[in-house]
Order: sequence, then C-alpha cells, then structure tokens
Amino acid sequence: MTIVPPADPALVAELVTGNRILYDQKIVDAFGHLSVRHDKDPTKYLMSRHLAPGLVTPDDLVTFDLDSVPVVDIGKRYYSERFIHGEIYKARPEVVAVVHCHAPQLIPFGATKVPLRPIYHMSGFLGAGVPIFEIRDTGGITDMLVRTPVLGRALAASLGDKPVILMRGHGATMVGNSIKHVVYRAVYAALNAALQMEALRLGEPMFLSEEEAVLAAQRNDNALDRAWNMWQREALGAN
Amino acid sequence: MTIVPPADPALVAELVTGNRILYDQKIVDAFGHLSVRHDKDPTKYLMSRHLAPGLVTPDDLVTFDLDSVPVVDIGKRYYSERFIHGEIYKARPEVVAVVHCHAPQLIPFGATKVPLRPIYHMSGFLGAGVPIFEIRDTGGITDMLVRTPVLGRALAASLGDKPVILMRGHGATMVGNSIKHVVYRAVYAALNAALQMEALRLGEPMFLSEEEAVLAAQRNDNALDRAWNMWQREALGAN
Amino acid sequence: MTIVPPADPALVAELVTGNRILYDQKIVDAFGHLSVRHDKDPTKYLMSRHLAPGLVTPDDLVTFDLDSVPVVDIGKRYYSERFIHGEIYKARPEVVAVVHCHAPQLIPFGATKVPLRPIYHMSGFLGAGVPIFEIRDTGGITDMLVRTPVLGRALAASLGDKPVILMRGHGATMVGNSIKHVVYRAVYAALNAALQMEALRLGEPMFLSEEEAVLAAQRNDNALDRAWNMWQREALGAN
Amino acid sequence: MTIVPPADPALVAELVTGNRILYDQKIVDAFGHLSVRHDKDPTKYLMSRHLAPGLVTPDDLVTFDLDSVPVVDIGKRYYSERFIHGEIYKARPEVVAVVHCHAPQLIPFGATKVPLRPIYHMSGFLGAGVPIFEIRDTGGITDMLVRTPVLGRALAASLGDKPVILMRGHGATMVGNSIKHVVYRAVYAALNAALQMEALRLGEPMFLSEEEAVLAAQRNDNALDRAWNMWQREALGAN
Repeated sequence: MTIVPPADPALVAELVTGNRILYDQKIVDAFGHLSVRHDKDPTKYLMSRHLAPGLVTPDDLVTFDLDSVPVVDIGKRYYSERFIHGEIYKARPEVVAVVHCHAPQLIPFGATKVPLRPIYHMSGFLGAGVPIFEIRDTGGITDMLVRTPVLGRALAASLGDKPVILMRGHGATMVGNSIKHVVYRAVYAALNAALQMEALRLGEPMFLSEEEAVLAAQRNDNALDRAWNMWQREALGAN
Repeated sequence: MTIVPPADPALVAELVTGNRILYDQKIVDAFGHLSVRHDKDPTKYLMSRHLAPGLVTPDDLVTFDLDSVPVVDIGKRYYSERFIHGEIYKARPEVVAVVHCHAPQLIPFGATKVPLRPIYHMSGFLGAGVPIFEIRDTGGITDMLVRTPVLGRALAASLGDKPVILMRGHGATMVGNSIKHVVYRAVYAALNAALQMEALRLGEPMFLSEEEAVLAAQRNDNALDRAWNMWQREALGAN
Repeated sequence: MTIVPPADPALVAELVTGNRILYDQKIVDAFGHLSVRHDKDPTKYLMSRHLAPGLVTPDDLVTFDLDSVPVVDIGKRYYSERFIHGEIYKARPEVVAVVHCHAPQLIPFGATKVPLRPIYHMSGFLGAGVPIFEIRDTGGITDMLVRTPVLGRALAASLGDKPVILMRGHGATMVGNSIKHVVYRAVYAALNAALQMEALRLGEPMFLSEEEAVLAAQRNDNALDRAWNMWQREALGAN
Repeated sequence: MTIVPPADPALVAELVTGNRILYDQKIVDAFGHLSVRHDKDPTKYLMSRHLAPGLVTPDDLVTFDLDSVPVVDIGKRYYSERFIHGEIYKARPEVVAVVHCHAPQLIPFGATKVPLRPIYHMSGFLGAGVPIFEIRDTGGITDMLVRTPVLGRALAASLGDKPVILMRGHGATMVGNSIKHVVYRAVYAALNAALQMEALRLGEPMFLSEEEAVLAAQRNDNALDRAWNMWQREALGAN
C-alpha cells in the first residue's frame, strides 16, 4: 500500500476555501471541481469526493494518484471527470492547480468559433490563445464528459501549454501555479467572456496586443492575494 | 367520500423544499407551481393551495384527483391552472412531478420560432425537442391561462412524450420522474435558454447532436442529488 | 388651516411597505417615489418626504393636496417631482396610487421608438399601449424633471387613460387602483421590457393580442396578494 | 520631515464608506481605488494602501503628496497606479476626489469607438463628452497600468476638464468635487453604459442634448445625499 504523507494543513484549507470561492463567484454551480497537486508528492493530487463545490469540507478531500485512482478508497463516489485533473498534472509538471467548470459566460464561446481574447489587463493570460476541445475528435459520440484516461489525455493535449481551454458543449478547464492563481484565472476568464460579448455588440473591440497581454498577466500574478482575500471574505463570511 | 392514505412525509417535505428551490433559483417568482404524484395513489397528486411557491409550507399542500378536484376541499383558493398538472398526470403515467413556471429566460423562446436546443451537456434533455403550446389553437382568445380541463388536455397533447414545453405568451411546463428530476430540468432549461441566447450573438452555435443529448441526459440523471443538496442549502439556509 | 383626518394606519403601513418593495425589486434605486390617494379625502395624497424609497418609515410620510403643496409643511425637503403625482390624481379620479421610477429595463424603450408591448400574460396591462412623454414638447430645454404643475399636467395629458407612460431620457410612471396594483404594474412593466428586449434578438416576437391582453390583465388583477405577500417578505424579512 | 495635520475624522470615515460603497455597488471588485484630497493641505491626498476596497478600514489610509509619495512610509505595499490620483490632483485644482475602477459596463465602451453618452438625466455629467485614454500613445507597449508619473500625467492630459475618462483595455477614472460626488458619478456612469448598450439594440437612442445634460447634472448634484445614505446603509448594514 502506498504511503502518502499528509498534505500541508494550510494547503488543505486553501483547497476548501477555493471550492467555496468558485461557488460564491458563480464559476461553478453544483457541478465543476478544483484540485491541487500534493505539496509533498507531485505524483498525487487532492480533490473533493463527488460533491457540490459549495459544500466541500476538509473531510471530503481525497488524494488521487495521477491515474486518478484514490490512494485510499473511502468507499464514496468520486467525480467521474477526475481524469481531467490527473492527465493534466501528468502532461504539465509545472501545473499546481486545476479548475473544471461550466461557467455560463464561457459556454457560448465554446459553442462557436469566435475566439476568446483579452479585452482588458485583468485577463491578459488569455492572450496566449484559448483552444477549444472537441471531444468527438477522440471519443466520437459520447455523453460529453471526460470520464476516461484517454479522454483526459486528449484534453491535456488540446490544452497544450495554454492556461485555459474551452470544451465544446460542456465547459472549460483552467490551470495555474497555485490555487489562488487558477481561481483568479477562472474568475477573470469568465468575466472577460462577458465583457467581450458585450463589446462585440459595439463593433470590433480592440483587444490587448500579444505583448500587452503577456506583461499584464505577469503584473496581475503579483496581486493574487488582493483578490483572494476579498473573495475569501465573501465566500466564508469571515472578516 | 374518497379515502386517500397520507403521502410519505419525506415526499411532502421534498415537495415543500422543491417549491423553495424553484423560488430561490428564480425559476418561479410569486407565480408558478410544482406538483408531485401521490406515492400511494397514482390517481392523485399533491400541490400547494393558491400561494407563492416561496411561501409554501406542509400545511398548504392539497391532494387533488386527476381531474384537479381537491379530495378534501379546504375552503381556500386553488391555483386556477391546476389542470396543467392533472391532465399531464393522466396522459403520462410515468410522470411523477410537474413544474409550471414563467422563467424569464424561457419566455422569449416561447414568443418566437427559434427552437430551444441543448447547448451543453447539462441540458441534454432538451435534445428531444421542445414544442410550443399555442393556446389559441384550442381556446381561441383567452386570458392565456390553462384554466380548464380542455385546455389542460390540449397542453398535454402538445407536450406529447417530451420533457419540456414552452407556452406562447405565458411560460413553460416541465415533467420528470421525481421532484428532483423536474426541478433539475426546470433550472437547466432556463439556464440553457440564457446560454443559447448569448451564443446566438456569436454565430450559429454547435448544439449537442441528438445522440450526445440522449447520453448526456442519461448521465446527468445520475447526479441529481449533487445539485439538489446544494440548492436545498441555498433555499433553506440549512447547513 | 385645512384639517385632514388621519389616513387609515393600514394604508400608511402599506405605503411604507410598497416603498420597500419597489426598492427590493429594483424598480427604484435611491430615486423614484410611490404615492397613494388619501383614503378619507380624495383631494389629498400621501407620499414620503425627499428620501430614498428604501429608507422610508411612517414618520416620513407627508400629506399633499392635489397641487402638491404639503398640508402641513414639516420644514423638510420634498420630492421636486411631486407634481407627477398631484396632477395625475387630478386628471384621473379613479387612480389611487402612482409610481415614478427610473427602472433600468424601461429606459431604453423611452429613448427609442420601439413600442413596449405585452410579451406574456403577466403584463397584459401594457396592451393598452404605452405612450412616451417628451418633456421638450411642453418645457423646451429642461433638466428633464417634472418640477412644475405645468409639466405635471403635460405628463398627465400624455398618459391619458393608460396605466403606464415612459418618459424620454428620464424614466417611467405607472398608475393603479391600489398600492398593490401599481406596484404589480411597475414590477411587471420592467420585467416585460427585459423579456421583450431579449425576444427581439430572436426575431419578431408574437405579442399578446389586444383582447388577450385585456383578459390577462383582468385575471391577474385578482392575484395581486399572491405577489405582494411574497415581495413583502423579501423586502421586510418578515415571515 | 513634512508635518501634515491630520485629516478631518469625518472625511476619513467618508473615504472608508466610499470604498465600501464602490464595492457594494460593484463599481470596483478587489481592484480599483478611491482617493480624496486632504482637507487641510491641498498638496496631499488620502488613499488606502494596496488592499481591496471592500476591506479598507481607517487604519489602512495613507497620506500621499501629489507625486504620489507617501508622506510617511508605513512599510506596506501601495497601489501601483496611485499616479492616476496624484497627477489628476495636480492638473485639476478643483478636483477633490478620484475613483479608478474596472466597472464591467464601462470596459466595452473603452475598447470600441462608440461614444458613451447620457441616456437619461441621472448621468447628465456624461454630456461633457467622455474621452478614451490610449496608453500606447505615451507608453508604447506596457502592462496597461498607469504606474509612472509620466503615464499619470498623460492620463490627466487626456481627461482634460472632463468628469470621466475611459481607459482602453483597462477601465475608467472619474473625478468629483467630493467623495459623494465622484461615487455618484462612478455608479451612474456604469449604469448609463449598461442602459446605452441595451438601447442601442433597439435603434439609435435619443440622448440628452448638451443643454439638457448640463441642467440635469446641476440638478442631480443637489441630491447626492439621497443616494449616498441609501448606498451607505447597503454597504455597511447600518440603519
């Protein structure tokens, strides 16, 4: 039996808070999930059992290996799409946290060919380009869910080295180098989608240039705590 | 006098919770209603007396026969449109719960010819097609309400074997094989309408194929509790 | 000095509640007002002093004559647009309550020529037609406010026998035969505007016919309490 | 060492409240800032240290000179864009308060060429015209932030004598002759943007004429307390 050292309690707390923030910020509803790579063992990741993110507590967290098999089977149901997380952690060693969501603002961009582009500095990270995952290319006719390692690998391949991928008829997945980072990206990817949708009504928007986007993204990565602290208070009611 | 055994208290509680969830999720406002077929007598159904769904308590529930006559007249006002429920239960023996609502996102689709179609897996159940009920075809010029058995039967006929029907100039009606099922369908039918509306701005969206929709709907029917538990906490404040 | 008998305390309470509901339902923000004709003296009406509707208490209510002069000057500031109310009460003896608001959904319809029409039964009262008040026709270049008896009379004349009027570059005014009636009309006029706006994206919506609108309006006027009771609980937190 | 007399405690309280209102009214999220010119020394201004506006307390306020250097360095991080404030206070001696924000409704207008114009009397102050700041003209390729005195001066120059400026790919900045004034302008600039966006769907809206806008703006500047008192209660929960 594999022995995995316990994760840092601060990381566990952050993962729970991240779940609550994603719900409070309406990035996830009862569906969607957030995971983090294990801080003591990069071949493992932590994620809730099958549960609405808004209800997750520390007791609901499960440690998975990168094949998305629970290290200790707690005899409960798991997210059927956990392969999104495991396969991305395999393909992207630098990725520390992953969000999968059905944020309403992102669905229309996943269903059409209009590229999601950074309309302001808060979402400069979109400047790298946002691919769309077409599950049919790998899975043919499916129930749209990434429920197998093969589909997870195909998603990770479509994601490539990008921070965000849209999934046709389904949702989106984001990665980051910390929980705070990926939560920031999820919130502002969705907000950018809403703003771009509105701007398109007025004509062809002027997006950030590639270089502006890179610089803006670097800058905002230094201000994650400012957002996190606010979101945390909203989500948890702490003061 | 007809003797009807009391319904399962758990079913009664679920019906009250379902009313509160529909209000909290903005599927109904002060208008609209939710009913469930009686668990001990399939020729009866339970529904609130004339009352805003957000205010319904167990004491407000009334048992109706399938002609929508209260088994015991409690001397209060009933929903004038209860025939929607009774006539659908007659026509669709497998249906266990019915929602009638004026969800804002659905009204535009009932007033135009653009078909409501599943833009993502959460609303695969729309893949079966969403008919529109034109009350004029049966009732001529009316106050738009389904206030008679004849109109209720016409609605049930238009619904056919589908899960959702739009009603021109009025609202929508959904059916399901449980309260949780029909509440899920109501929430995601409305959300799909909003997402489809947005996607249409960007061009012709790629909807789920018929087969994808069937498979997605089957899959999601296995995750109703995940949504219900979240919605219940939001609506009732329980933890 | 004029002696006016005190208004029914129930009416006073309803006026306060109506103010709170209009705020809670986002029909008014810090601006806008609700008045009611005095139940003991039809040549008087009650309205708050200059105050955000969401902050109104019974102590803030003032009795005005139909020239919009306070019966007893309490030495505080009054709404500069109280002439909207007084002049409508003069011109429309059957009107019992008046709302003036800047509901966001209604502003676009007041700034363009697209007529507001009833897209569903809840707003059948719009079937009578919704005129637009152009203040320039009477006042020339103004600050847009109905701050004189002359402008109030012009507004009342434009309103004619209709329930709702839009005001270009300003807002809207509704009348009703009770506080509950006018609050209902304000809420559903705004909601109809939002729904019509969305439906227009999909093509030419099928509106209620004139006769359907009349019948639907009559019907809904019998269900005002159902809405009021829900809104009251939302606004006041009572149970 | 410079000795600056302490600001009026009422001003300090108002600055904190203004921060909370801007957050509660969704003009700022975790980003954006509000400053006020020092009431005892016009060559100084007060603003929070680097912190989400919704979390600002009196202890977080810092006094800056007009070069945006803290009078006393408290050893914490400051907003990198404080030069927006300092340079505007330099260029506009009559300005007492400044808001910088990323209000979602304003972003689309900053990314396209459609001018923001006053659609109703509440936003008459927009009638003066709303310039757009293009940071590339001064800074070339940047991270979009106004992080230097040079960029601050360029922004102030683009603002000229206007009350509001949009910033391409970034946000907006408003000025006023008091905290209440600039908060009012921020709220209604954003609301106007939303209403104009909707009205544009219906055709070419009729905006306020230049003279109507001037008169309406003067009038509304007399009703700032009515809005502020309501917003304050919403933001602080006081009664």
